[in-house]
Amino acid sequence: MKTYLDCIPCFFKQALEAARIAGADDFSQKKIIDEIARAVVDFPLSSSPPEMGKVVYGVVKRETQNYDPYKEIKEKSNNLALSFLPELKQKIEKSGDRLLTALKLSILGNIIDYGVKSNVNVEKEMEKIIKLDFNLDNREEKDVFDYQIFKDALRQTESILYLADNAGEVVFDRLLIEEFSRLNKEIIYVVRDKPVINDALIEDAETCGIDKYAHIISSGVDTPGTILNLCSEKFLKIFQKSELIISKGQGNFEALSSEEAPIFFLFKVKCPIVAQHIGCKLGEMILKAQQIPAEQIGVGSL
Amino acid sequence: MKTYLDCIPCFFKQALEAARIAGADDFSQKKIIDEIARAVVDFPLSSSPPEMGKVVYGVVKRETQNYDPYKEIKEKSNNLALSFLPELKQKIEKSGDRLLTALKLSILGNIIDYGVKSNVNVEKEMEKIIKLDFNLDNREEKDVFDYQIFKDALRQTESILYLADNAGEVVFDRLLIEEFSRLNKEIIYVVRDKPVINDALIEDAETCGIDKYAHIISSGVDTPGTILNLCSEKFLKIFQKSELIISKGQGNFEALSSEEAPIFFLFKVKCPIVAQHIGCKLGEMILKAQQIPAEQIGVGSL
Repeated sequence: MKTYLDCIPCFFKQALEAARIAGADDFSQKKIIDEIARAVVDFPLSSSPPEMGKVVYGVVKRETQNYDPYKEIKEKSNNLALSFLPELKQKIEKSGDRLLTALKLSILGNIIDYGVKSNVNVEKEMEKIIKLDFNLDNREEKDVFDYQIFKDALRQTESILYLADNAGEVVFDRLLIEEFSRLNKEIIYVVRDKPVINDALIEDAETCGIDKYAHIISSGVDTPGTILNLCSEKFLKIFQKSELIISKGQGNFEALSSEEAPIFFLFKVKCPIVAQHIGCKLGEMILKAQQIPAEQIGVGSL
Repeated sequence: MKTYLDCIPCFFKQALEAARIAGADDFSQKKIIDEIARAVVDFPLSSSPPEMGKVVYGVVKRETQNYDPYKEIKEKSNNLALSFLPELKQKIEKSGDRLLTALKLSILGNIIDYGVKSNVNVEKEMEKIIKLDFNLDNREEKDVFDYQIFKDALRQTESILYLADNAGEVVFDRLLIEEFSRLNKEIIYVVRDKPVINDALIEDAETCGIDKYAHIISSGVDTPGTILNLCSEKFLKIFQKSELIISKGQGNFEALSSEEAPIFFLFKVKCPIVAQHIGCKLGEMILKAQQIPAEQIGVGSL
């Protein structure tokens, strides 16, 4: 997804929020704003928003010398989500369609995102999720919920590349990965290489027990989205060979929505610009198959 | 009021909205954004937000060569508000306290502001206002509604300097000015000198019939707030001599809240930063006496 002009005010908002979480005083905050302002002038709008995210969070890190300001937030989110794991598992046990429920839960977990909104109340969000009756929700009939296409693609592959988004959300990914594991799929779980916002790192994946069901690797980036031309060669080789890629979160959608690959995007729409880009409502739960001609990617099921 | 760091993302948002209303294409919009970005670096936060507003709307005018992009919006707002004038007058006739109701209506009219939100539905807002029962609203008991102080100040003065804000809203000002006129006060009604957003000009004041009750002058500025050091000498002389000044709108509040003068600020709080600055809720109706020591301004009633 290209960067829209309307993303620009939001870059400044995100910079301010990150600067404050990193402990910057007013003077440093203004310095950060000024650096972003200078960068905006040279930023090509053909780039995706996470590429500007790299600049924004890079400036905050450099100016505050705080290289992991969301560390505590990430730990809390992981622990809180883990404390709800038995209840979340029960929801899958009790549901009519285990895979569908696990998919929905994985998307709902995407609410634990500090990039768009710095004041997520994870506990409250968890309680809301626990109260939902997934059997009453006919999500698969909605516009951007390609469940049937996903099931067909899943049937035809042995392995899945799973691009993670946020800490805490990893617990919800685990539920879906456990379902894939029951279906004897091999899973590679991909996290960021270095801290950026509350995005998941290898330590978060391990804390949330992903290592029991998947092989964990890093994409090589510290950007709030998997920007392919910044990824490690090791990751790119795996990416290019993958038959089914799950891309979690809005940042990964923004970074990958123009890439020709067998991707399914799973995320909550948290920004009006993305909603407009997709043609859906703000807050919508998205399961979106990458729409590119099948002959180009060699996967018949898409 | 100084400019808060949180105002900066909003400057970019306002620039984009104004650029679009002025008919700028994507390329011009990016040029405008870039100019604002360069200006932000040099902008001292000790200045008030309307001073940056001067830059923002100046850049939009220069780049689009559209010197009155809100002209049509202003005309529509005036005409629509005028069409409700008989009903609004009836509300005052039927009310227990004519002055209080006229004050409240004048504040409610401040919703017709395209600076903060570009998609005001004036008709819908008018209908909401018409439906309100003013006799049921004990506004004067609220925190930032200095009605008693205002009545005392009004009693002790013969003349009022009334700083207008937006077109359309002028009709609501007229209701209050008619009440002042019934109390035999002399009124000077002050508008902007040149177009900025949908702020009222002399032609708007005349269209809305202010000239029947008040002397209309311009402040000399084309900024979205009465910034004293940019005002004409003629206006400043009148301002300095005034015993009671009514300042309508958030922009005028931002520009004048640190000035030592017998001002009453009347506005709807439309921005979370202003709400935080005052210590009130977003959307609140404000009647706020300038809080400066009486001996400094020589007006006992304050």
